[in-house]
Amino acid sequence: MKLKDQYPLSVYNSLPREKEFFKSINKDYVGMYVCGPTVYGSPHLGHARSAITFDIVFRYLKHLGYKVRYVRNITDVGHLEDEVAGAGEDKIVKKARLERLEPMEVVQTYTVMYHKSMDVLNVLRPSIEPTATAHIIEQIKIVEEILQNGYAYEVDGSVYFDMDKYTQDYKYGELSGKVLDDLISGSRNLEGQDKKKSAFDFALWKKANPEHLMQWDSPWGMGFPGWHLECTAMSSKYLGLPFDIHGGGMDLQFPHHEGEIAQSFGYCGCKPVNYWLHNNMVTLDGQKMAKSKGNFISLDEMFDGSHSLLEKAYSPMTIRFFMLQSHYRSPIDFSNEALKAAEKGYKKLMTALQTLSEIPHVKGEKDEKLDQEINQLCDEIYKSLSDDFHTALALAGLFELSSKIYSFYNKQASVSGISKETFQRLQTTFTEVIEDVLGLISEDGGGDGVLDGVMNLVINIREKARLNKDYALSDQIRDELATAGVKLKDEKGTTTYKLD
Amino acid sequence: MKLKDQYPLSVYNSLPREKEFFKSINKDYVGMYVCGPTVYGSPHLGHARSAITFDIVFRYLKHLGYKVRYVRNITDVGHLEDEVAGAGEDKIVKKARLERLEPMEVVQTYTVMYHKSMDVLNVLRPSIEPTATAHIIEQIKIVEEILQNGYAYEVDGSVYFDMDKYTQDYKYGELSGKVLDDLISGSRNLEGQDKKKSAFDFALWKKANPEHLMQWDSPWGMGFPGWHLECTAMSSKYLGLPFDIHGGGMDLQFPHHEGEIAQSFGYCGCKPVNYWLHNNMVTLDGQKMAKSKGNFISLDEMFDGSHSLLEKAYSPMTIRFFMLQSHYRSPIDFSNEALKAAEKGYKKLMTALQTLSEIPHVKGEKDEKLDQEINQLCDEIYKSLSDDFHTALALAGLFELSSKIYSFYNKQASVSGISKETFQRLQTTFTEVIEDVLGLISEDGGGDGVLDGVMNLVINIREKARLNKDYALSDQIRDELATAGVKLKDEKGTTTYKLD
Repeated sequence: MKLKDQYPLSVYNSLPREKEFFKSINKDYVGMYVCGPTVYGSPHLGHARSAITFDIVFRYLKHLGYKVRYVRNITDVGHLEDEVAGAGEDKIVKKARLERLEPMEVVQTYTVMYHKSMDVLNVLRPSIEPTATAHIIEQIKIVEEILQNGYAYEVDGSVYFDMDKYTQDYKYGELSGKVLDDLISGSRNLEGQDKKKSAFDFALWKKANPEHLMQWDSPWGMGFPGWHLECTAMSSKYLGLPFDIHGGGMDLQFPHHEGEIAQSFGYCGCKPVNYWLHNNMVTLDGQKMAKSKGNFISLDEMFDGSHSLLEKAYSPMTIRFFMLQSHYRSPIDFSNEALKAAEKGYKKLMTALQTLSEIPHVKGEKDEKLDQEINQLCDEIYKSLSDDFHTALALAGLFELSSKIYSFYNKQASVSGISKETFQRLQTTFTEVIEDVLGLISEDGGGDGVLDGVMNLVINIREKARLNKDYALSDQIRDELATAGVKLKDEKGTTTYKLD
Repeated sequence: MKLKDQYPLSVYNSLPREKEFFKSINKDYVGMYVCGPTVYGSPHLGHARSAITFDIVFRYLKHLGYKVRYVRNITDVGHLEDEVAGAGEDKIVKKARLERLEPMEVVQTYTVMYHKSMDVLNVLRPSIEPTATAHIIEQIKIVEEILQNGYAYEVDGSVYFDMDKYTQDYKYGELSGKVLDDLISGSRNLEGQDKKKSAFDFALWKKANPEHLMQWDSPWGMGFPGWHLECTAMSSKYLGLPFDIHGGGMDLQFPHHEGEIAQSFGYCGCKPVNYWLHNNMVTLDGQKMAKSKGNFISLDEMFDGSHSLLEKAYSPMTIRFFMLQSHYRSPIDFSNEALKAAEKGYKKLMTALQTLSEIPHVKGEKDEKLDQEINQLCDEIYKSLSDDFHTALALAGLFELSSKIYSFYNKQASVSGISKETFQRLQTTFTEVIEDVLGLISEDGGGDGVLDGVMNLVINIREKARLNKDYALSDQIRDELATAGVKLKDEKGTTTYKLD
């Protein structure tokens, strides 16, 4: 039996706002689209949370036995500063103008930075990573279709989505719970702003002035695509409509994802997506992160501890672990205390993983209760993951297994009490869930084991020196190791080391 | 005085086939375009040679004081199997068909692999890395212009460059030294192959059958761009025409770069490039690498030593160093012997760099001859680099400086013989040329110094054991280190270590 049949997945679908059993359109295949970054600034915790959330979804779906085509885009044109009002400058064009660069130099800089940060966070690359500028033709095609279907109109070289016409045939706002009339009455006066008929008609295609830095020819003259359009173009091109899963941050529900839904109905009369998944936001000491507040911390600043709000550097795995300690739909608040606790938790879990690999199974008298307990814990871990990817509960289960592992290691319990099969199941579950599903990896000494080997030798030499009462040497070893950045810990008759 | 004025650069220009002084179009700025990979297979030594060659050009231009916009493309559509005959399948489409993937999944897989390999080879990312599929509109525009100028014709949904018309107005083949009449008489019979008027009319736009996996709408129907076209579109878009430097492998001169030249004249009546630079090829034990010969080694196989022709793994820096030991316009032959020698040379150079950082300058009696000698060596290193990027000669100069460094370290010569200024110049030149220009970096223990610190301690303990004639301990240390993957080397009274 495949894991996906053994632990059927349910997901919280943001559109009906309830948990549903997951059923893919094509039996063993899943098509997933996730909104990636707009590459005009350094990657930050918000980027990391969304990427890690859907990395878990991607990893777990594959672990369950699905073949997944995971498309995550790069937005390199068309994302305006104020997408609710459809106003302001294109974010990348603005950055390029301020830094006197070609916009594609801005795109390259921050795309490379994003990839590097996500790589060290052990976020897997998606199957396809398309960019908005690489799909201008596809976007123009969709605008033409929507125009033809009567859900858009052209004014002076721009094309707008016609909300008035759309709401005669379809509902708008179901995903975000926004009511269009409320939105319109609450919006600013449009006079003199642009030529759309109604405040929430959004741009499918924007006319560009001759001096605008990024523009392409279209049936409506030189211009550039609206932000929402790229996702409709790229998801439909690579996954077809409808596809299984669309993910993104909660803040994208309105207006971005509402725009995608409206465009899809306007384009082909069909809903775009079966399951909408949204991750919650990140706060810092209880406050929303914002550049203006000075509490905006980039991932590089987290990794090297250079931001003044940080007491120390936090490693990529500490940040990953910290995020997995909350369910993806809960908000998470970053603080030094919480991060330091996560660092300890992460190290404890990885030590248990190492310890497990050192325990051999031996045959002996069976302890039915213990055997059952371990099987139950393994079951519960999978059930947690299949319950809308509840990584927090899965981690709790892994820590319960850790206690068992330590009790075997310390001989407080006998590993012979559990059957060979149960022991193998413990090994497989513990290792695969930590490494393959949660994507937690060792950060010690680059993982090549050389330092481990050398440190074993050093610890043995020190041990002998102490037995010989050569305390001068054993102290010298401890001191010189500390200088080299290695801390020794003597506990329960054994010495372990860790990097500072 | 800026370095670029102190050591004026000359480059071998493939078009006039001679060395010329380099003068950029805009005083302090250089625009450079280099043909990047077609991403349908694992990156190999040929990719590395081209990338490293132009990485040196990029690094040295910046080091000289130029601001460089370096564009290197990714070919993700349109590169046919036989570009001389303009025949065969699109390489990426073929791979996608065989592996039952969406072409963009193939592109993603090999683009990520290429970036990872180039990153470990310490090849800097270009300023912009555009893809062919992201510039379909720009390519169509150029085809339209060439058609309008009369240098192309449409047949049945494809557009071909009209060589007959072109050669009435311009010369063809100057870069590669090909004579068109010879080419035509030597080519295969065209009958039934396709509908072009002459054998060397190349496709600007190719009609696609409905089942073709990658196609876009155009004024001539559904199709895809010809290979040469993307480079004209992307270089002109990001650098303007003409631009300063165009680079690529020698094997790209014909037909690819000849195609670019013809397209540029056909498009705007102007030459595209002021300086054409081409790197030579890589052979393996004297033979051209080819998948059919079984001597095709990917970079990953080089790095992990898994290919049967390799006696061991060779690190990225060994490969980089090995390539820099030849001038980029000379062929290089890979063999285990040559690579092992390069590994030694690289380590020797890096040890000298480390040693230099440990020598303090002291005042004393001046040794005019030595002082002059060191200044001359520094001069010569820069002159070599400014002489068409002669990294082989620069490395020879660095090794001469290394001897001086060791003689200071071993007290065979007195560092007080040279002035403070000369000492600083030695430090700056040695460090900057190795690290910034040649891009050689330390590969020891991940560079975080922890292993270095611990190994210092271990080597000291072993030293004391030997002084105390405790050979059991000193042997034990050597053996256990070997097991951990660390080899000790006793030479000239000091012990160093290296990783296996």
